[in-house]
Amino acid sequence: MSVYRDPVDGSEYRLDEPRWRSAAGRPLWIDPGSGLDRSDIDVAARSLWRYRAALPVVFSDPISLGEGSTPLLEREWERGGRPLFKLDFLNPTGSFKDRGTSVMLSYLRDRGIRSVLEDSSGNGGSSVAGYGAAGGLRVKIFAPASTSSAKIAQVRAFGAELQLVEGLREESENEAIRQAQGDAFYASHNWQAFFLQGTKTLAYELWEDLGFRVPDNVIVPVGAGSSLLGCWLGFRELLGAGQIQRMPRLFAAQPLNCSPVDASFTAGTDDPVERPVSPTIAQGTSIARPLRLTQMIAALHDSGGSTVAIPEEDIVHALDLLCSNGLFVEPTSASAAAAYSALLTAGRITRAEETVVLLTGSGLKAAPTVADLVDGILR
Amino acid sequence: MSVYRDPVDGSEYRLDEPRWRSAAGRPLWIDPGSGLDRSDIDVAARSLWRYRAALPVVFSDPISLGEGSTPLLEREWERGGRPLFKLDFLNPTGSFKDRGTSVMLSYLRDRGIRSVLEDSSGNGGSSVAGYGAAGGLRVKIFAPASTSSAKIAQVRAFGAELQLVEGLREESENEAIRQAQGDAFYASHNWQAFFLQGTKTLAYELWEDLGFRVPDNVIVPVGAGSSLLGCWLGFRELLGAGQIQRMPRLFAAQPLNCSPVDASFTAGTDDPVERPVSPTIAQGTSIARPLRLTQMIAALHDSGGSTVAIPEEDIVHALDLLCSNGLFVEPTSASAAAAYSALLTAGRITRAEETVVLLTGSGLKAAPTVADLVDGILR
Repeated sequence: MSVYRDPVDGSEYRLDEPRWRSAAGRPLWIDPGSGLDRSDIDVAARSLWRYRAALPVVFSDPISLGEGSTPLLEREWERGGRPLFKLDFLNPTGSFKDRGTSVMLSYLRDRGIRSVLEDSSGNGGSSVAGYGAAGGLRVKIFAPASTSSAKIAQVRAFGAELQLVEGLREESENEAIRQAQGDAFYASHNWQAFFLQGTKTLAYELWEDLGFRVPDNVIVPVGAGSSLLGCWLGFRELLGAGQIQRMPRLFAAQPLNCSPVDASFTAGTDDPVERPVSPTIAQGTSIARPLRLTQMIAALHDSGGSTVAIPEEDIVHALDLLCSNGLFVEPTSASAAAAYSALLTAGRITRAEETVVLLTGSGLKAAPTVADLVDGILR
Repeated sequence: MSVYRDPVDGSEYRLDEPRWRSAAGRPLWIDPGSGLDRSDIDVAARSLWRYRAALPVVFSDPISLGEGSTPLLEREWERGGRPLFKLDFLNPTGSFKDRGTSVMLSYLRDRGIRSVLEDSSGNGGSSVAGYGAAGGLRVKIFAPASTSSAKIAQVRAFGAELQLVEGLREESENEAIRQAQGDAFYASHNWQAFFLQGTKTLAYELWEDLGFRVPDNVIVPVGAGSSLLGCWLGFRELLGAGQIQRMPRLFAAQPLNCSPVDASFTAGTDDPVERPVSPTIAQGTSIARPLRLTQMIAALHDSGGSTVAIPEEDIVHALDLLCSNGLFVEPTSASAAAAYSALLTAGRITRAEETVVLLTGSGLKAAPTVADLVDGILR
């Protein structure tokens, strides 16, 4: 039976009582489960809930807006590449976060939670506000005062309470935790382990998209790491269940301006390594001290993958190329496409390999910025 | 064999040469085809191209971004209703227009067209710019100077040329037609008959979503009428092919401030009827003189449906309710949801009937406006 586990001290907690951290105050984790057989897929569900057999608890009443089941699209690319783009920006609130949110809030609501707090500089907040609304939950979002106006507008429209917090991103988290008392649960997409149970459906879906095979490589933009760790969990479970014969290599794309995972990985450690941080257009991955660094490094090693740190101008170039292909995404998504080019150039992947590039967020969340970047106005 | 037909003088034109109007200068039309059998569905295609067997020509190389295959979601609603919302705002560029554009531009490119002109106040322009980019076509969009900044930004990011035109919406069309010469084809989503061949996949998809049944009612927002006529075409074809036993009733939702279809329908005519026009928040349906009025009236009668004209405050109320359900859409989409409530209240449909409400465009295209409307700031 699955449990919450603190990977540092090994303490365990039952899943029937929602927790967001261990007794020692660290993030919890749920180990890979037993996966599923393809006959366990609920083919009538056009959403990630088709893979609910792979989730560690039974859900009585999922909060679903049709998340998942996104297109996988092969496109020509520079350097003769032909990556497969996973269009997760076409999720209900405009980002891949909806996978995690749908499962996390469904789990919490099933266990009696009626009021949640979340801190976010962007997509996570929109997503929790949207699914909170869909599920009849009271939602309060804490966001840095600098958050993009489209994302703030979305949170407001969903009827969530919004508190803008001055200062660094961390201040929003601190304020949310301060207010998490009584019946208000801290439903952080970074802390709550069930969020990763949602993002792991990415692995199941890619496997099904490809006719029950895995690709050679999967490249994801990495900030707090929920898409990376989700993919790792899902593919590990499929491997454990004998449904696949090997892990795809997982690659973490980070903006060079904020690349703590790359810094540690290239230094050969899973401890934080000093590297300067500066602003980046890939805001969704601008997280200087990711909570789950150790697990991310382990997942990268386990899969045979690695990290790529992308200079700002290469992110802009990839964004331009994506838009020229009809794919209107956020700059954060473009870092994964830029990483594909960089990996090809360095010979770390080849054109002949099958490589999936995850596109995480809609360009409509920052439309004028995307257009200005592509037009060269902001370069 | 299918042909382009001018419904007024009956003149016919072969489909192998692209045309956007008849010799007499009127919009052309393609009659319902022979439909398909469910075994003709290409189940490997996760897009509207799964229904390509129902299209009137063979496509050698579709321009596809994964359009179609959108979620169909049952939600609780006011007055005890439980409509099924079709989430077509989750299409690749953020609106249902992608269905029409994908088929229209694929048809044109297959026939050698490399450069297209389009006029639009919004979603049509974003869609043609996006699919033009995906298909390697040169695109020029003519838009009213008042077009929303997110839509303009999207057009720019896709690399399309953009000409803003002062004056009414019609001035943009006139300017596009003036410049449609030489190798630049006028690929208007309102004029080109193949656009409706794309939107007709809505009918096929609803039929498949419901396990190869049709709903009792389908409510769509109507401006130029491409979703209404598309639904009518598709359901007619399914009926002709013996796949369904009856047409669903089709209902056209229009903002009262701009409701020419409702004006003619309620007056019992298919000629234009005088009714004052004023600005509406449902911008996507703000079309005072729709090209295909006669066919729309015929489609409504043929299906046993009718029209609903919605006051602005009811559109805002429905927008608020949709957002409270986690569905972040454009005001235009909300008019169809408001029509559902109005039809229930008037007893023209019942709660026991199965009713689909089409949600056409993403709220992210006008995020601050949606939030201000929902917050009551713009009321």
